[in-house]
Amino acid sequence: MAEFTVDPYVDRYARRTSGMSASEVRALFSVASRPDVVSLAGGMPYVQALPIDHVLEVVESVLAGRADVALQYGGGQGSASLRERLAMLMGEESTEVDPDDVLVTTGAQQALDLIGKVLLDPGDEIVVEAPSYVGALSAFSAYEPRFVQIELDEDGMIVERLEEALLRGVRPKFVYTVPNFHNPAGVTMSHARREQLVALCREARIPIVEDNPYGLLRFEGDHRPTLRSLDPSNVIYLGTVSKVFSPGVRVGWAVAEAGVLQRLILAKEAADLCGSNLTMLVTERYLSDEAWRSNLTQLVDTYRSRRDAMLMALLEHFPADARWTRPAGGFYVWVTLPAYFDTRSMLAAAVERRVAYVPGTAFYADGSGKERMRLAYCYPPEERIEEGVRRLGELLRDEETLFRALSG
Amino acid sequence: MAEFTVDPYVDRYARRTSGMSASEVRALFSVASRPDVVSLAGGMPYVQALPIDHVLEVVESVLAGRADVALQYGGGQGSASLRERLAMLMGEESTEVDPDDVLVTTGAQQALDLIGKVLLDPGDEIVVEAPSYVGALSAFSAYEPRFVQIELDEDGMIVERLEEALLRGVRPKFVYTVPNFHNPAGVTMSHARREQLVALCREARIPIVEDNPYGLLRFEGDHRPTLRSLDPSNVIYLGTVSKVFSPGVRVGWAVAEAGVLQRLILAKEAADLCGSNLTMLVTERYLSDEAWRSNLTQLVDTYRSRRDAMLMALLEHFPADARWTRPAGGFYVWVTLPAYFDTRSMLAAAVERRVAYVPGTAFYADGSGKERMRLAYCYPPEERIEEGVRRLGELLRDEETLFRALSG
Repeated sequence: MAEFTVDPYVDRYARRTSGMSASEVRALFSVASRPDVVSLAGGMPYVQALPIDHVLEVVESVLAGRADVALQYGGGQGSASLRERLAMLMGEESTEVDPDDVLVTTGAQQALDLIGKVLLDPGDEIVVEAPSYVGALSAFSAYEPRFVQIELDEDGMIVERLEEALLRGVRPKFVYTVPNFHNPAGVTMSHARREQLVALCREARIPIVEDNPYGLLRFEGDHRPTLRSLDPSNVIYLGTVSKVFSPGVRVGWAVAEAGVLQRLILAKEAADLCGSNLTMLVTERYLSDEAWRSNLTQLVDTYRSRRDAMLMALLEHFPADARWTRPAGGFYVWVTLPAYFDTRSMLAAAVERRVAYVPGTAFYADGSGKERMRLAYCYPPEERIEEGVRRLGELLRDEETLFRALSG
Repeated sequence: MAEFTVDPYVDRYARRTSGMSASEVRALFSVASRPDVVSLAGGMPYVQALPIDHVLEVVESVLAGRADVALQYGGGQGSASLRERLAMLMGEESTEVDPDDVLVTTGAQQALDLIGKVLLDPGDEIVVEAPSYVGALSAFSAYEPRFVQIELDEDGMIVERLEEALLRGVRPKFVYTVPNFHNPAGVTMSHARREQLVALCREARIPIVEDNPYGLLRFEGDHRPTLRSLDPSNVIYLGTVSKVFSPGVRVGWAVAEAGVLQRLILAKEAADLCGSNLTMLVTERYLSDEAWRSNLTQLVDTYRSRRDAMLMALLEHFPADARWTRPAGGFYVWVTLPAYFDTRSMLAAAVERRVAYVPGTAFYADGSGKERMRLAYCYPPEERIEEGVRRLGELLRDEETLFRALSG
């Protein structure tokens, strides 16, 4: 690419592109791939634990039996047999779903984009959590909404704050939430909060978008009811196989009532005609026998050990006035440092010390969160996690010393 | 899905959804799948001709050697090795491309959507051909542009008409064209028109979006230069492997200059994070040895024979006052009937006679084209094509008789 020419299209871009910028998460991908850097940044599942021989058998059986389907165009809603399988997967979290109400998408990310597309006009309000999944903020941003942030605590979204916002006159098109093992906050919405949120949104006629990528990755305790199971007609549910199988197949899904679903399907067809029959059939076949369950059990054990390693290391190496969440599942620990820290400007120094994380500002629609960071324990083995946290802890101590010297 | 409840979200949808409706092409998919119906409707490639054993070997080698990449998330721009391979594929049409300027998309359809997303604000003008690819009209429609239609003839877009439109004050964000073996019109833009179009758009500072899914499916004659090769800095080029390999892998691509490309990548990441590493690596490997070329030669032979069968059958069975194009490649013949025909209302009767096509109205932004139809010869074997055209010819004669009786 020519670096020094003036962009001839500079006056041609849509207004929405002014909000598009390379995310901090994205910029980190290249750094994180250097082998000497311990990456606590990206949320890559540990696919090395997948039973590759079994996956290969699955692909062989799909190509041997259904090549003419697997290699052809399919319908916009996605493979019917896969939709049945995904409905069964939701049964694992006690959520009953009709496969006809399922739309298969390119990961759950595409469902976020399609929801923005069919529900948002520029200037519409939407409610997101503070912090919120960075990919959801990007997907929705393209439709130029006004973000209303509602804070989280250890029990998930503080529903009272949402109620106050509604009383102040906020009229969101929808409320977006990650109730289980929140990305980035690591917290899980309590049962009481779920009942409260569902009742409030039903009363106020505000649809809920429930994004549940990590629900089956629970390390301890009982599954909480999905919001969808508490109020099927007012909740659009999003799922993905990225964390229980593979992100490489790009299979996610949305569940919605007929009116929304039909529009999502049309938007999907306009966006890419259809998903990959090949990866849909492979996913269906993978989920059709019991091997995936033992793999999932193994994955959960692995992630639990890594979480434990991270929590131990944080206790050992992080300053006494730092706080962090203790996730009961999922991929992330969310760290809050004393207010004088700026994790964004500190990142370059961290990479120099061969450790990476995602600065907190990536997860707020309003750019706050500079004293926070997301640490992912999903990918590196325990000893690397320990080493990464140790390097970060050293950096934090040095920064603290510097701060005290400068302000003292 | 509950059929009888009122849609609770009915007042919540974005304005853009009012233009979304189930396309006529889509409604036909279910009909076309009945085995007794000869479908001349859908543009499904003849994937049965693919060397399945070889495809399986390719998948095996990808999973044996690179499973941890194939099953993991990738970067938003798409696999670097695949981008190199796609650049080489463009060399087959004498078009030089830097792999860094390539973005891999979910079929070329996603590239259309992303182009709309980064370039179009509501009310912006864009130029499309009349007729135009229905999927492009759907993709762009989501961004609420005003369509300016420019007619085609046997030599492709009538560039003089575009010039006139510009003189009238039309100021399009871009000009969208399918120069080779047009969908639906079957025509190919002449070399002179290509030079003319490129010069006019460069002069007027209007980017061209060149959509070239069928370029390598030429039955006779020499390749024409791509618009991109005539003016790289002002042409956004779209390609796909759907027609030379498989639509089931959902691999297409866009080539654009740095400024546009960066925005397309950001829009792609917001839309679905990344494509499928599995299908990208499979596609890369499939295109890396020479087997794909012999398969392509075989495909071109098959499609040529089917085109010949359709042209012969049209001559034999269609009314003398019908006209149709003679494609030198690609999938489609475009039929123009006397003005009193309405192919849209006639479709039900056609399906009753066990033959399907796509009514002309699907391909015009302004809903014109009722006396036209698109006939696809890509999928059914010769004898089915002959039988389908015979059934359609009978219907046309009966309709003509009825018309003369009613108006005489």
